[in-house]
Amino acid sequence: MKLKRQKPKEKFSYDPQKVLKKLEDLAWKILEEVKSGKNPYFDVPTRGLNNVYFDEEARLIKLGDKLSRRYFLNVAHARKFTQTLILMAYIKRLVSEGKHASLREAYYANKHTIPGTRENTFEDQSESDPIIEDLERMLGVLREEMHITADRRGYIYGDIVIKDGEDEFNASKLGTGGWAVPGTVEHIQFPEVNVDYVLVVETAAMADRLIEEKYPKKENCLIVATQGQASRGVRRLIHRLHYEEGLPIIVFTDGDPYGWYIYSTIKQGSINLAYLSEKLATPDAKFVGMTMDDIKEYNLEHVTEKLKGIPPDKKGGPTGDYKRLIEELNYPWFQNKEWQRQLKLALKWGVRIEQQALANKSLEFVAKEYLPEKIREGKLLP
Amino acid sequence: MKLKRQKPKEKFSYDPQKVLKKLEDLAWKILEEVKSGKNPYFDVPTRGLNNVYFDEEARLIKLGDKLSRRYFLNVAHARKFTQTLILMAYIKRLVSEGKHASLREAYYANKHTIPGTRENTFEDQSESDPIIEDLERMLGVLREEMHITADRRGYIYGDIVIKDGEDEFNASKLGTGGWAVPGTVEHIQFPEVNVDYVLVVETAAMADRLIEEKYPKKENCLIVATQGQASRGVRRLIHRLHYEEGLPIIVFTDGDPYGWYIYSTIKQGSINLAYLSEKLATPDAKFVGMTMDDIKEYNLEHVTEKLKGIPPDKKGGPTGDYKRLIEELNYPWFQNKEWQRQLKLALKWGVRIEQQALANKSLEFVAKEYLPEKIREGKLLP
Repeated sequence: MKLKRQKPKEKFSYDPQKVLKKLEDLAWKILEEVKSGKNPYFDVPTRGLNNVYFDEEARLIKLGDKLSRRYFLNVAHARKFTQTLILMAYIKRLVSEGKHASLREAYYANKHTIPGTRENTFEDQSESDPIIEDLERMLGVLREEMHITADRRGYIYGDIVIKDGEDEFNASKLGTGGWAVPGTVEHIQFPEVNVDYVLVVETAAMADRLIEEKYPKKENCLIVATQGQASRGVRRLIHRLHYEEGLPIIVFTDGDPYGWYIYSTIKQGSINLAYLSEKLATPDAKFVGMTMDDIKEYNLEHVTEKLKGIPPDKKGGPTGDYKRLIEELNYPWFQNKEWQRQLKLALKWGVRIEQQALANKSLEFVAKEYLPEKIREGKLLP
Repeated sequence: MKLKRQKPKEKFSYDPQKVLKKLEDLAWKILEEVKSGKNPYFDVPTRGLNNVYFDEEARLIKLGDKLSRRYFLNVAHARKFTQTLILMAYIKRLVSEGKHASLREAYYANKHTIPGTRENTFEDQSESDPIIEDLERMLGVLREEMHITADRRGYIYGDIVIKDGEDEFNASKLGTGGWAVPGTVEHIQFPEVNVDYVLVVETAAMADRLIEEKYPKKENCLIVATQGQASRGVRRLIHRLHYEEGLPIIVFTDGDPYGWYIYSTIKQGSINLAYLSEKLATPDAKFVGMTMDDIKEYNLEHVTEKLKGIPPDKKGGPTGDYKRLIEELNYPWFQNKEWQRQLKLALKWGVRIEQQALANKSLEFVAKEYLPEKIREGKLLP
């Protein structure tokens, strides 16, 4: 199997005017209600597990259609209603002025005592964050599109040209460092894409190994280092590289429940952020390793480690790695024989295998044999 | 006060040949002892608090001169002696071949069963890491100079040209992302330095704020985002920018015991890594904020947060933030009236103030008023 760039499925479409329009439409609705003496309200899609489902066809975790109505003239709702309006006004200002703020800045910027009262608009950030999530759900836009940036983590390396504002540069010409992925990637464009696929790598140490071995050049791919769980910026970047640039996505993590969870989040989205799946997830992503079968295939038995926590058949279990493993066994998107096999083997053997354990063969092994062979022979998990 | 680049105090001096020479000299010594029928040994500088002191003149935490002798023909020493030799051979290969390995790879690569025995060279990484630290102390070289890379974290943004291998690029032309600092910065050179100083920033969100406000351009500085505690790579980079490029270093963290600890580590080195202070620390660094006095000066009382943990005068205290605060009150390098004042105020008020709390004034405030004013007026802590 030779991985190749495919036909793009989406076009670059970020347009701050659309976000402003949505905010204004909603604000006009409220204003009309006030003017006509009605009790103004917002309809907010319900959060939580009971409003989340797995769409088999789109293969995405999606938000259901349950709504809760939030009235201004209701003592139980008035606070959140007001907070929603305050943040809408703030976001409108941010987007209009082309400025970005972090969640924390959005909280601090809008915290004040309401004149003539002893009431604070927000007591702490745990009040403002959920309102911003509500707005994402209500408007169907990412908070990044509303110029509220997420925490940043992760970097990329490979032969693509990135255009970010006035700057244009090739992400394979930045030495051993690579390009640090910003919190918001909405505005970024890709004038040139010279790679065949994207390899998403869990650990920085492994990404750096591959860079040192010149893997991105030899295999003509882009390395995306997530540095643990993929940040929203990185997930959005992967999504865009797949849908807008047609790049196949291959994920490479440690062979353990946490690594597989990282894969699962990139591929299917997370339950907490179900309403974002369509913009953040990439259901076509494939998994190259590490797998339990790799342990036997490459004679890595002596460099495995024990899973942490209590197994399900022991008193107090399952906890730790075992608990996550049991959850993963039940994920709708892991209901296929390949994943069931890996997850059950992990449960049976009680071990994990790290990416870097491949260094036991040789430093070069992962770049010269493991990855190229598995990818060429299509030994990928769905 | 106008910050300006000063005369460099050191020259770029990384030379892998010097590291190889040190390794070989030590190996020859061992070989000679074996040949002449002596019991071969290593002299290893003792680790731990009792072999660490604060050098008042150099203003650095330094390693004392206590040694422990590790013999081959001693049942208590033989294992560590052998491990030391194994890793010396491995490092020699890495440096000769121009390759790098992470601590974890170094462990996996050297884990095997010794032929004819049931003995493993290393049982887990907690056996190999300390040997590498021992080698740093024994040879007086950073593990990065031995091509063992540290975890990477942090990025930079500003008008300097970086040369990393064949790549040369300007770190102010990388969009909003910035350059991801690699685990090892020994080999990096700075062909052009067009900034007046370095501003080290604790949080990515604040660094991104300053980038969005074009602070690096307006104030002609380089932003270094540590993203929490500064990684070894970032600390080494700061050290080199100061000593080799003459750049003043200004540190900007949250106003809390953890932020001040980040400053302390950049400035004076850490006790764990005392033997590295001369290459990793930058005693001339200054601190711009956040301070307790900022709270009153800028009317930020309503956006402070409570310190975590139990105060020293309460039952079970001090814990958490308070425990660290008490430790900091006793640091030799905080024995000056400015720092004693800030630390005692924090203890008295029991509050902390975050960098991002400045957003309560306005998003621009930190970039247009707070930092430029404090730096211009020299309101910096030693």
